[in-house]
Amino acid sequence: MSFTTSPAQASPPGTGSAPTAATPLTLARCRALVRPALVDAVGRLHPWPGEMAAFALGWCGTGGAPDPGASQGKGVRQALAVLGAEAVGASGETAVPAAVAVELVHVFSLLHDDIMDGDETRRHRETVWKAYGTGPAVLAGDALLAIALQTLSETPGALGGAAVRQLSATLTRLVRGQAEDLLFADRPWTGPGAVRPDAYRAMAEDKTGALLGCAAGLGALLGGAPAGTVTALDRAGRHLGVAFQAVDDLLGIWGDPARTGKPVHGDLRQRRKTYPVIAALSSEGRPARELAALLASPLPLDESAALRAATLAEAAGGRAATLDEARRHLDAAHACLRGVALAPRTVREIEGLLDHLLHRNM
Amino acid sequence: MSFTTSPAQASPPGTGSAPTAATPLTLARCRALVRPALVDAVGRLHPWPGEMAAFALGWCGTGGAPDPGASQGKGVRQALAVLGAEAVGASGETAVPAAVAVELVHVFSLLHDDIMDGDETRRHRETVWKAYGTGPAVLAGDALLAIALQTLSETPGALGGAAVRQLSATLTRLVRGQAEDLLFADRPWTGPGAVRPDAYRAMAEDKTGALLGCAAGLGALLGGAPAGTVTALDRAGRHLGVAFQAVDDLLGIWGDPARTGKPVHGDLRQRRKTYPVIAALSSEGRPARELAALLASPLPLDESAALRAATLAEAAGGRAATLDEARRHLDAAHACLRGVALAPRTVREIEGLLDHLLHRNM
Repeated sequence: MSFTTSPAQASPPGTGSAPTAATPLTLARCRALVRPALVDAVGRLHPWPGEMAAFALGWCGTGGAPDPGASQGKGVRQALAVLGAEAVGASGETAVPAAVAVELVHVFSLLHDDIMDGDETRRHRETVWKAYGTGPAVLAGDALLAIALQTLSETPGALGGAAVRQLSATLTRLVRGQAEDLLFADRPWTGPGAVRPDAYRAMAEDKTGALLGCAAGLGALLGGAPAGTVTALDRAGRHLGVAFQAVDDLLGIWGDPARTGKPVHGDLRQRRKTYPVIAALSSEGRPARELAALLASPLPLDESAALRAATLAEAAGGRAATLDEARRHLDAAHACLRGVALAPRTVREIEGLLDHLLHRNM
Repeated sequence: MSFTTSPAQASPPGTGSAPTAATPLTLARCRALVRPALVDAVGRLHPWPGEMAAFALGWCGTGGAPDPGASQGKGVRQALAVLGAEAVGASGETAVPAAVAVELVHVFSLLHDDIMDGDETRRHRETVWKAYGTGPAVLAGDALLAIALQTLSETPGALGGAAVRQLSATLTRLVRGQAEDLLFADRPWTGPGAVRPDAYRAMAEDKTGALLGCAAGLGALLGGAPAGTVTALDRAGRHLGVAFQAVDDLLGIWGDPARTGKPVHGDLRQRRKTYPVIAALSSEGRPARELAALLASPLPLDESAALRAATLAEAAGGRAATLDEARRHLDAAHACLRGVALAPRTVREIEGLLDHLLHRNM
């Protein structure tokens, strides 16, 4: 599948199409810029939560042992912070406290969410609670959040206060999104209590979009941008989050397990309320009714039942609706970027990043 | 036991002794001042973590049902914030964002610590993780922390940034103290790896003192005090924390269960590394050796063994050393208050509060 909008849609007039092939270089450049401050922040923690934080960041294995195979992630949030500053004409260095903070808040949220969701693996390794125990993992998450806030609050100059205000509001949103997502599990598939696409979108905007938006907005804020520019970058990040969540949900049902690293139909077999299923169930017709009956049955979904559910979800329009959702929010993100005055070169880098992310997962 | 220092020690010359009998009125006044903003902050959360937060604050039972028997706590931290502002000549209202923030951070830390410690009851009720489940309790703690930071960061005027910087640094200290405390459990009773009194004191200063100090210091900061005054109030609160922890440890062994609400010798039977035991074991002589052997044995400590341990800890000087520790830090707290120019009337209220707390638990 392809989510790339046409060059005319993706870029401001005259800037040409986004250089998608350059995105891995952009991400690597941003990671290299942020890395020393990130290492410094984690180094300020007590050694025990510090080790768990390093494990969660993919810097080491359990016990602090080297783990060269561990994935350290793309660093999308730190990159958005750096690019947010560069987009408003400031140096990437200006955004480093924000980049450190959003990256550590991201790891904090993964760590605590894995406890709440009972997820035992992440990026092909044990999750922190599985490797170190639940109590220590709670502590490690708290430690990451504390040092994220401390780093941002110590930003030189007068902007640290406003930056922490943005990040704190984002934290409240993250919690709200996670609360909604956890509560979705107990709601019925159909009827007045069912999760509707708009409720799912609001959850995804809080859970996934808020921190992506905060990252780009904080970069611009520390770069000295006016409020309107900060808001535009924040909104672009939120749309990116909603689009990303839709793509992630698509890959969880129809993606190639060899590429996604996720089990075939895993989301369906676990009866997760994802956008494709919610959109399918909100349609009229026989496939939606059959899908609802299958999901509501008390029987476990074996591979053939999950395949049937995927087929029904597609027949009920869930796949097309999700692709449309992703495209719409990607377009909206691009529109946010085009609505304010930003450095064209950096806009191309951000647009390349958006398109890159929506071709694969983060 | 009495920890009240003499009037000459407790108060600046000419101010007379602290009006201890007035302390419950001071606490009630501060709670009434802060309550609307506290209710407002919790009301900004998603309803589900909001309900868990209200449960943890003693405002309701599970499910949001009324629970008139629930203890809402004294509100020591919010009182210290209010008094910190009043001590520097500002109105108590000035400190309300700080008071809300420190109170919610306190509840956050209790909530997550109860998960880490596996404690099932607090203030004669189930803990949040016991009542709602571990995952939801992690979320509720995160929610409390998020809204605490958001409230403080939104403080009107230019001081919100500095205030959040102080609170973030305090969070890092809280995490460090909790990490040390958890690791103490795995350390030996004697030998080079044993916990020494100075390590215990450092843990107590981080785990208990840091937030009490932050509360008083933030009140002064928002009240417009110079840095030296903020630091003096912060230090007074830290000494209070160390003294309080010592008293709490004494009550956990020799306190009257009818007054403390804790089981007789509970800390000893659970082999907790508390100050009296650590001080006793750091002494020379036969009682210390016998106590070490008793605690190191693999057998569970029944009531008679726990009574024997209490007797040995007292014979080895653990009780006297802990009383001395509490007195020294209470005196140091008073000295911090006398070292800077503060409103005499408020200093008397703070001194009354310190003495009141060290006669009982928080």
